[in-house]
Amino acid sequence: MFLRGCVTTPATLPKSLAVRRLFSSSQKYFATAGTSLPQTIRQLLARPESSQPLHPVEVSGWVKSVRRQKNVTFAVISDGSWAPGMQAVLSNTNIPKNLTNGASVRLGGTLVKSLGAGQAQELRVDTVDVLGDCDPETYPIQKQALSVEYLRENAHLRPRTDAVASMLRLRSELHRAVHGFFEGQDFTHVHTPILTSSDCEGAGETFRVVPNTAQSTLPEGDAQEEFFSKPAYLTVSSQLHLEALASSLSRVYTLSPCFRAERSQTSRHLAEFWMLEAEWAFTRSVDDVCDLVEACLKGVLARITPDSSLPWSDGRLRSLLNAGQYDAWARMTYTDAVAELERHHASSRAFEFEPKWGRSLQSEHERWLSESFIGGPVFVTDYPASLKPFYMRLNDDRKTVACFDLLIPHVGELVGGSLREERLDYLVASMKTHGLDEEEYKWYTDLRRFGSAPHGGFGMGFERLVSWLSGIENVRECIAMPRWAKRMLL
Amino acid sequence: MFLRGCVTTPATLPKSLAVRRLFSSSQKYFATAGTSLPQTIRQLLARPESSQPLHPVEVSGWVKSVRRQKNVTFAVISDGSWAPGMQAVLSNTNIPKNLTNGASVRLGGTLVKSLGAGQAQELRVDTVDVLGDCDPETYPIQKQALSVEYLRENAHLRPRTDAVASMLRLRSELHRAVHGFFEGQDFTHVHTPILTSSDCEGAGETFRVVPNTAQSTLPEGDAQEEFFSKPAYLTVSSQLHLEALASSLSRVYTLSPCFRAERSQTSRHLAEFWMLEAEWAFTRSVDDVCDLVEACLKGVLARITPDSSLPWSDGRLRSLLNAGQYDAWARMTYTDAVAELERHHASSRAFEFEPKWGRSLQSEHERWLSESFIGGPVFVTDYPASLKPFYMRLNDDRKTVACFDLLIPHVGELVGGSLREERLDYLVASMKTHGLDEEEYKWYTDLRRFGSAPHGGFGMGFERLVSWLSGIENVRECIAMPRWAKRMLL
Repeated sequence: MFLRGCVTTPATLPKSLAVRRLFSSSQKYFATAGTSLPQTIRQLLARPESSQPLHPVEVSGWVKSVRRQKNVTFAVISDGSWAPGMQAVLSNTNIPKNLTNGASVRLGGTLVKSLGAGQAQELRVDTVDVLGDCDPETYPIQKQALSVEYLRENAHLRPRTDAVASMLRLRSELHRAVHGFFEGQDFTHVHTPILTSSDCEGAGETFRVVPNTAQSTLPEGDAQEEFFSKPAYLTVSSQLHLEALASSLSRVYTLSPCFRAERSQTSRHLAEFWMLEAEWAFTRSVDDVCDLVEACLKGVLARITPDSSLPWSDGRLRSLLNAGQYDAWARMTYTDAVAELERHHASSRAFEFEPKWGRSLQSEHERWLSESFIGGPVFVTDYPASLKPFYMRLNDDRKTVACFDLLIPHVGELVGGSLREERLDYLVASMKTHGLDEEEYKWYTDLRRFGSAPHGGFGMGFERLVSWLSGIENVRECIAMPRWAKRMLL
Repeated sequence: MFLRGCVTTPATLPKSLAVRRLFSSSQKYFATAGTSLPQTIRQLLARPESSQPLHPVEVSGWVKSVRRQKNVTFAVISDGSWAPGMQAVLSNTNIPKNLTNGASVRLGGTLVKSLGAGQAQELRVDTVDVLGDCDPETYPIQKQALSVEYLRENAHLRPRTDAVASMLRLRSELHRAVHGFFEGQDFTHVHTPILTSSDCEGAGETFRVVPNTAQSTLPEGDAQEEFFSKPAYLTVSSQLHLEALASSLSRVYTLSPCFRAERSQTSRHLAEFWMLEAEWAFTRSVDDVCDLVEACLKGVLARITPDSSLPWSDGRLRSLLNAGQYDAWARMTYTDAVAELERHHASSRAFEFEPKWGRSLQSEHERWLSESFIGGPVFVTDYPASLKPFYMRLNDDRKTVACFDLLIPHVGELVGGSLREERLDYLVASMKTHGLDEEEYKWYTDLRRFGSAPHGGFGMGFERLVSWLSGIENVRECIAMPRWAKRMLL
């Protein structure tokens, strides 16, 4: 192996690192480090019942409900670790006045077998500490149904609702499942730049980034123009950067924030969203790329367990997912899709927009294909080159490119991907056709100049994935603190 | 449990989802899905030798070296999956002219026991396909030592050097180790906003975000001012948002990009960097927070294996890490630290800046504490309130706050954290002292109004962690595509 000199190697490790505690006077600052955090409610209740002698435990969380009976009071305490929380049983002589919904508490007691329905174990409470009051009169998160819009306005408190907390846990589970999948496929996780000088899609509205002149000591023009010596934008996709990294590491992926300054107000778009993007070398066909997407989604589906506060938690999703899990997902070319759409339209006049080869598929077309014609996820492949970005690989027919959109019922396009054009001359020709400045993309064409490899990849909107798997229809409820045109709270 | 109406539940699951393949004509679009990707070199070589009969394998990657001997030619092929790559043995009659450094290739052959030193197995090659040429005359990544600055200029190609590829793999390992640690502690991973309306630290230069007027159809003033109805900035820290989420989920963390428009050119600062931040409720003391940081770092250290292309790969780091692994790390208060600094300065006049209670610790002070006095990582706790941000919890002495900086030899401050002020009246008083507008932070004080809980957290610069564990001194070499003042390539 040859070492190249791109890092500074300290000639020797400083002595101070090798010989610790140089000064005996420093001895008194060393103590035994503590252990990890106390168990969460989820962890406590996950222990097998038999292994739980009647020993004291401490539970901290927020009061979700208080129900006073003749002899005892039942309270549900949640620490956010799992949806049902823990049922606590308190003696009626032991109830502080401020034990109300939303208050934070620390309870001491014993875990015992529950006599009531709904939980296997409950906490018999000995001590109650209310750590933080919550005035029932003014608390914005009341128990009655609260409108979506009201909760959006209270973005800082809406994680306290069961549904938003469940979404956040699902999102975290998905995050872990996705990383687990790519680890299993030996991908390297990478962080790609958020600030970029290029616009990957060559279209769409972007955000520009400038130093905050209110704080700057420089004249406005200087401060705005010259921080990076050239204009900086927020990334709309990590793909081009991933391609550079895949030219060395072969298999790379990232889950990264992306930004579009779209003014449209739809249930499927945010100004700030997270995108899972993967790129890998030595792939041979668009079917290879679809295979990995399908394996990724099925792997993720198999790992998650949406909980009861979510719309699609009641077994219907599970059965759908299981169906999707074992069947192969449908694949059809754009050309076949248009033919099917034309046939359907000829007999039914079902569409507002007439389907026709060479035109974009409209939302109504995509819905019919996935929801009615296929009745499940469908990869539509090989679109006309004129409808797609410059970097997609031209097929031998010289009219279509080796790409796909994955259409999901009621979600629409969840994933888009393609082979990338690895042939320098084809790429340069495509850039000309798309009106791109070759000089600006020299670094990108360099990847084809030196050891170019066939490669492909895809991008998946993370909020759309959450939407699909939760049944939450609007992506604004699929992220903790959404941003869209005219709206940025916190 | 009570369901709150914050999501729209479809009354019934559409039939098209329950009954798949509504149209028999769609049958032909279903095929058997493919399997996962072929094994990487790392995976191939990780298989136990005994389980490897002489069966044909295919290896794709880039040529790292070619060495022609009398009868055979040795080539090292890397697919980026692990540092040593794979040694390939080719018959001299079978060497294409364009089999040169940097070319991408697909080799077919048999894995056999290696007779040479340096690898247990090698690939006896039957077929060679050069997929992408690499002209040895013009290839920017030559085998001789290349300067750091030259490689920075070639940001798109520098991942092809062994050292940068090793750093990227280490970064990915660290990423997984960090997520694994927090999963084990039952934290929920969350995505916090990148675009915000507030400046967490109340200081420091921020970036402002505006729609790109070059693309906008609106008049410049409108487009700039009103996209979000108020000015938008790039986040400098996720902490305040994490606090809101920890008020429901108890334990949350994120690894998120952060931005500072600093014009300084140091080896420890980037304009765009990644920060690991965690926040959890029901913590009681700053020692609790230090405990988790120490457990996190030790857990991560135990999981990683920096490879041979990195400066600290030669066992010295490993022994240092092992030492750090089992000892308790030192902790001292700021007050004790200043007393030790004063004592040392009184005898040696070692410092340019005189240490004195109430003043910030200078870099020279921090270095002496960690590198000389302690000779290892040291938590310095309980700084004067006047030196720290508004949100830190006031100690009973009413002069200091319950916070810490973790100082690491040769890295400096790796982690900073604190208890957060959970008492509404103290927080409001602190905001006044710091000149903050209470109305603007109403959402933040609300967290103390309704079920406030004692909580704390920390932030760790991810590039500094990479720097510490790799031995790469400049953070610009600890991220794939760095951005700093005047520099943004790609």
